[in-house]
Amino acid sequence: MNDLTSANSELLALAGRVKEASRLVRLASAQQKNDALGYMAEGLEHAGEEILAANADDVDRAGRDGMPSTQVDRLRLTKARISDMAAQVLEVAALADPVGQVTRGYRLANGLAVSRERVPLGVVGIIYENRPNVTSDAAALCLKSGNAAFLRGSSAAFASNRAIASVLSEALAKAGLPREAVALVPDASRESAVAFMRLRGYIDCLIPRGGRSLIAAIEEHATVPYIIDGEGNCHIFVDASADLDAAENIVRNAKVQRPSVCNAVETVLVHRAVAPEFLSRIDRLLPEVEIHGDGETCTAISRAVPATEEDWATEYLDLKLAIRVVDGVEAAVDHISRYGTGHSEAILTNDYANANLFVREVDAAAVLVNASTRFVDGNQLGLGAEIGISTQKLHARGPMGLEALTTERYVIEGNGQVRG
Amino acid sequence: MNDLTSANSELLALAGRVKEASRLVRLASAQQKNDALGYMAEGLEHAGEEILAANADDVDRAGRDGMPSTQVDRLRLTKARISDMAAQVLEVAALADPVGQVTRGYRLANGLAVSRERVPLGVVGIIYENRPNVTSDAAALCLKSGNAAFLRGSSAAFASNRAIASVLSEALAKAGLPREAVALVPDASRESAVAFMRLRGYIDCLIPRGGRSLIAAIEEHATVPYIIDGEGNCHIFVDASADLDAAENIVRNAKVQRPSVCNAVETVLVHRAVAPEFLSRIDRLLPEVEIHGDGETCTAISRAVPATEEDWATEYLDLKLAIRVVDGVEAAVDHISRYGTGHSEAILTNDYANANLFVREVDAAAVLVNASTRFVDGNQLGLGAEIGISTQKLHARGPMGLEALTTERYVIEGNGQVRG
Repeated sequence: MNDLTSANSELLALAGRVKEASRLVRLASAQQKNDALGYMAEGLEHAGEEILAANADDVDRAGRDGMPSTQVDRLRLTKARISDMAAQVLEVAALADPVGQVTRGYRLANGLAVSRERVPLGVVGIIYENRPNVTSDAAALCLKSGNAAFLRGSSAAFASNRAIASVLSEALAKAGLPREAVALVPDASRESAVAFMRLRGYIDCLIPRGGRSLIAAIEEHATVPYIIDGEGNCHIFVDASADLDAAENIVRNAKVQRPSVCNAVETVLVHRAVAPEFLSRIDRLLPEVEIHGDGETCTAISRAVPATEEDWATEYLDLKLAIRVVDGVEAAVDHISRYGTGHSEAILTNDYANANLFVREVDAAAVLVNASTRFVDGNQLGLGAEIGISTQKLHARGPMGLEALTTERYVIEGNGQVRG
Repeated sequence: MNDLTSANSELLALAGRVKEASRLVRLASAQQKNDALGYMAEGLEHAGEEILAANADDVDRAGRDGMPSTQVDRLRLTKARISDMAAQVLEVAALADPVGQVTRGYRLANGLAVSRERVPLGVVGIIYENRPNVTSDAAALCLKSGNAAFLRGSSAAFASNRAIASVLSEALAKAGLPREAVALVPDASRESAVAFMRLRGYIDCLIPRGGRSLIAAIEEHATVPYIIDGEGNCHIFVDASADLDAAENIVRNAKVQRPSVCNAVETVLVHRAVAPEFLSRIDRLLPEVEIHGDGETCTAISRAVPATEEDWATEYLDLKLAIRVVDGVEAAVDHISRYGTGHSEAILTNDYANANLFVREVDAAAVLVNASTRFVDGNQLGLGAEIGISTQKLHARGPMGLEALTTERYVIEGNGQVRG
């Protein structure tokens, strides 16, 4: 059932306790879970000084270790950030409880009453990087959906994570729930990450939140079920019939509003018929963005540098944009099916047939018509907070809210039926 | 994205063609898919002699290789079995097409129209053992749900599978669909199985249909997403208030009707208050079944042999039954949470509170009250044919019909919206 040889015994013992905790939290009422979330938010505010002190240790060490400043920024907490974390926990508390929802119900000819009901997954494992706020965000979503949260943060954020997790466990206890329904792996070594992803029988779903090397390690070593929150190499195709004023707004929004996130646009495909006009607009529109273009783009935008094969395949997560001129919607779809990562793909058009064709043929978690790719986000789409954005097709695709942290079971009620 | 080092180049080239085929079959209309299924059924009937000749080669070789006769039985085709395969394909054709179903739709405050729509997974990989009928059953379900079927059967059934797959590809071509929307791996070596489960980027979902060693190999080596169709160590708890006549029927049905399948009962838990009466009934009821019991059971049923720890954990798939006397519903739930595999668990009771407690606390794909575990089957539960029964929690849990072969994507339609 599980591969224990590579897991150290301390981790294994903890995993056993988290699994036990999951059996109790699975049965907790919505009220009890909301009480715990309320105590968590309170606790984060009250323990602000202790969390900041622990975080200062992490930040100092990171500075000494030469961590790049953008990463140190992610690691650093402030009083305001802790208040945001508490507010986020309360937002999760305010969401509807998915547990117990009956998604389908029917009666069979033989009289059996069949229903499908949402139940928690059990233990949700999260591997994440330097942002300490993930500790409380993920824990809150897991608890609300009736799961235990088994957290494995980075070593750089260990003191911060430990201080936060301790507050969360205290809140669970205050609400009469097991402390280890939120548990932090005490050893943040690379070996422990591999052991963690091999805790088959203890982790029901692993959600890695990190870059390529983490995803590659999961694919290679994980024996537990997992959901990949992968890259978003998102495209916007500006068709010949697009409203170019709207297209300007959308491209700017999708590239510049927050370039470091997975739903930002990375390549714009422009229909040849509007290329001269739209490319010159882009040149003025995005002065702060480095343009990597094909031949026609480089002709139209003198500051553009020639795009390589790698540019088409790259999720920049930065103020960089690849641009290619294409012959039409079919060529745009071909480009996307070759280079896209199945995240979010948009067409800007006023042509009904082209919109239909694009929506039909593009295979991605989200396909958009005349809207910014930045909308592909759990909160924006009305799911409430999100635990990640799945780029795989199994279980959950696209933004994952509370429902993605549940599974459905059959409940079958009879009065003595046997199979004929 | 994918690990090609261990995949041989022939397999990789085939995988590329199957992926291409999946892009076309994904867009096929329900009519076109049904036409192909009709041609498949016709083709199987027409090519009966060729399939039987190929199968005779497999059966002869299996005999020479000393394959056990029960396995040879599974491998052997007859004219009637081929007709059953054709009929099964037509049954799949008659099911509703899941592709394009809108599962949710709403409009956001900013005017964006959001819908979630079922779309095919893409390429579904199936690794299976000696039953050649799986070739057509799986291919039909994959096609109906808009997927390409990438099949890797056993070497023992290779000639049979090749003959069947060839008929299916011919039918696809006749319907104007790509032949390689059904493809059989030409090399059935163990190395090829490992290479197959590492075709990341080519297989969107792998469904292994086989025993423990196959599952273990998948957990260890697979880099593609997969769904485990695992063991069913199913229990029936006979409560103090159970109608013992109904309980007799149900236990007999669940054990004897078809002992070799995963939804057959393996352990019966009997409430102490009715143990003397019910155990003596079981003794008479199941003369052909070997009983492995705890101390009290062995006292009541003289032919019973003492159960070991291993008996509680074993999926017999045979005319064997473990029996344990327990103090009540809580003890039954504890036993099940310790030894169950999360498949199908039943309580037989007339006590409302106990039924509720059992349903609430038992964590399994299906929980039944006063009905046989044998109902946990896609066909019985109204899903139509099934591709397997998932014992994991991600994506699909319990019987998997056509919906389990789809994923949901977001379609977001706007008129120029950008994120604020």
